[in-house]
Order: sequence, then C-alpha cells, then structure tokens
Amino acid sequence: MTDHTLKAFDSDLQALAHSVAEMGGLAEKQIADAVGALARRDVALAQRVSGADVNIDALQREMAVDLREIVGALRLANDLERIGDLAKNIAKRVIALNTEFPPPKLIRGVEHMTDLVLGQMKAVLDAYARRDDAKAMAVWRGDEEIDTMCTSVFRELLTYMMEDPRNISFCIHLLFCAKNIERMGDHATNIAETVHYIIDGRPITDARPKGDTTTMGALRVAGDK
Amino acid sequence: MTDHTLKAFDSDLQALAHSVAEMGGLAEKQIADAVGALARRDVALAQRVSGADVNIDALQREMAVDLREIVGALRLANDLERIGDLAKNIAKRVIALNTEFPPPKLIRGVEHMTDLVLGQMKAVLDAYARRDDAKAMAVWRGDEEIDTMCTSVFRELLTYMMEDPRNISFCIHLLFCAKNIERMGDHATNIAETVHYIIDGRPITDARPKGDTTTMGALRVAGDK
Repeated sequence: MTDHTLKAFDSDLQALAHSVAEMGGLAEKQIADAVGALARRDVALAQRVSGADVNIDALQREMAVDLREIVGALRLANDLERIGDLAKNIAKRVIALNTEFPPPKLIRGVEHMTDLVLGQMKAVLDAYARRDDAKAMAVWRGDEEIDTMCTSVFRELLTYMMEDPRNISFCIHLLFCAKNIERMGDHATNIAETVHYIIDGRPITDARPKGDTTTMGALRVAGDK
Repeated sequence: MTDHTLKAFDSDLQALAHSVAEMGGLAEKQIADAVGALARRDVALAQRVSGADVNIDALQREMAVDLREIVGALRLANDLERIGDLAKNIAKRVIALNTEFPPPKLIRGVEHMTDLVLGQMKAVLDAYARRDDAKAMAVWRGDEEIDTMCTSVFRELLTYMMEDPRNISFCIHLLFCAKNIERMGDHATNIAETVHYIIDGRPITDARPKGDTTTMGALRVAGDK
C-alpha cells in the first residue's frame, strides 16, 4: 500500500477507536451492574444486564462485518507470501542441482502440475477481483485434481528411478518440487475460502475435498518451508 | 461503526485489493519462473526467483503494519464481547438465586475483585485511547494480583461454607462469579497485549505472569461461557 492509503485509513481509524471505546464503556458498565445486582440482590437490574449484552455483541459483529474485506485481504496476503516461499524453495533446488542434466521427459509431470496450479491462481485472483463466489468455489473444488495429479507424478517419478539409477537423485529433487507445487495448490484453496468469506460473510463449512496424496513428511528437508 | 465509516473504508479497500492483486501477480510469476528455471536448468533465473521473494514478503509485511490498528481493534472487540458475556453470566446467576438472602460479608471478596478488574479495564482502555504502552504493560503485569485474590476469595468462601451449611449454595454461586471475574481479568490482559502490539508492532514474548489459581474446571456449569 502507498503512503496515501495509509493516510486515508488513518482518518477511519479514529472512528474504529471510537467503536472500541464505546464497547469498552458498555463492558465496564455491565461488570459494575452485574456485581451491583449481586450485592443488592437486584433481580431487575440483573435482567437489564442480561438483556443489554446484545448491544456489545451487535457492536462486535458490526465491526467484524465492516472489516471483513480488510481481514480477508490480510489472509490473502499471508497465503500469497507462503506461495512465494514455495516458489523460492523450487528455485533453490534448481541452484543446488545445476550440474545435473536429466532427460526432459522426467519433468513433464511437474510442469503439468504447475499449469494446473497457475490456472487455479489465475482463477482465484480473478474471483477476488470480480467478487465471483462461484468461481472461487470452483477453485476450492479443483484442488482435488492437483492432489491426485501429485500422486500420479510421484508414481511416475518412482518408475524413472527404477528404470535408471542415474535418475534417482534428480527425481528426488522433483518429488520435493511436486510437493511444493501441491502445497501452492493448498494455499490457492485457502485463498478461495477467503474470497468466499469476503463475498458471502460465512466461512465454508464443508470438508475440504482431498485427492489421494502420498505423504512426504518423512522426506522433507530442513529449511523447506 | 456508522454507515459513514463503512463508506470511508470502502474507498481504501480498492487500494488494498490492488495490493493483493500485485502480490498475486508476483506470486504467479515466481511460480512460472521457478518451474521454468527447473525445466531449462536456468540457474541465473532461479537466482532471480530466489532474490525476488523479498518483494512479496515486503508487500505482505507492509500490509500487516498498515492494518495493525484495524486487526488490533478487532481483537479488542472480541475480548470486550467476551467480557460482556462473563458479566451476563453473573447477571443470570443473580436472577437464578433471587430468593436467597445471605449475609453481605460473604460478597465482599467478590466486590473487591470486581474493583480490581474495573481498575484494570479503565487503565487498559485509557492505554488504548492514549497509545500508552507503559500503562498497557502495567495492566499486563497486574493480572497476577487478580489471580492471587481469586484464590484467596475461594479460600474465604470455603470457610463461610464450613462455618454455616446454609451458606453453601450461595457461596458456590459466588465461586463461579469470582471465576467469571478472574476471566474478565484474563481478557483485560489480552487487551493489554493487543494495545502493546498496536503501539509497538511486536507481540509480548514474555510468559504471562500468573498468580496461584484454584482450578474450577470440574465445577464449571454447562452454558457458562
């Protein structure tokens, strides 16, 4: 964001601080009244305290709704930052393996997965820009395909390793690259969930669709994010 | 917040959406370049990808800093809402026990705890309004006193129960009220942490000071929030 944006927000922040102060005042009064009612056995006052709780609840809900776009944008930024880290992981592997020249066919599966993930990224960023919930939900459901493809890439790489032992080292790097790309897909799915939340106001409550994935936990390298 | 505030935020949200779109475009490019470098064994490109990750990181950090006040306000609203719930719990107990008239001395400890918590609330809301980090930190450290007092109120109430069995039922209600007040203190401590975060930009990393507290978990009633 630019300095201009920061400044523009500043003026609104005062209104926000005012809302917090209002809630704080209400909460203080509720505490004092509740214990006052207890001390004086004042049931009528206790009933007013019980009834007035909705006012604080309403202020909090209103604030959350007003700020949903902002909270959503922060979540999107976090997921995009993690996707950037995953791309960097792949780049670091390329730097590490610079002397190896395996046959190009080994890499096809990883490239195919990448095309799928880039398609998901493009679609979900478009869904965010256009506030298109249906498109976001399509991305959300589409992650299963990436997971399934990740598994088939793993199997394919295993066959290359068995076929020619000289492929083993490179294929292990590719396994990790595939895993990084699969995790980018997970973040694209997070983004889809956030876009849905921004548009709809409610989180997705369905279980996330998951394709069959080979667990790579035991193989993860130190420093791999 | 008022409709006016909501509208004012709206114009800034476009700038925020623009930042997200910018990050999204960078992340897409990083993915394509990382896998492109892998496919073509282009170490120079991989090094550029690795170096360019700081740009996404910087955008995300900038956004988080710009929005710190807003994220902080949302957290404050959540804690205040929970404090309101706890006051309501006490009010509901008062309504439930309206036919009992125990000696006023039984309630002194709870009233004393309430004074402490109200003092903490006032101080921390003031710290928020004035951006006074030292005051927020004083509230943060002060929670220990409430916890310690809660324990001594528990002990005191036990003596009243042993002294006269007719006090037992009322004292059990008071135990729960004391527990509710102690938890208000915990939320005031959360608020102090958030105020510190808003002012300082960094979370408090020290362990939270805790007085000796009697665990009331086993005695908690259903529906008690």
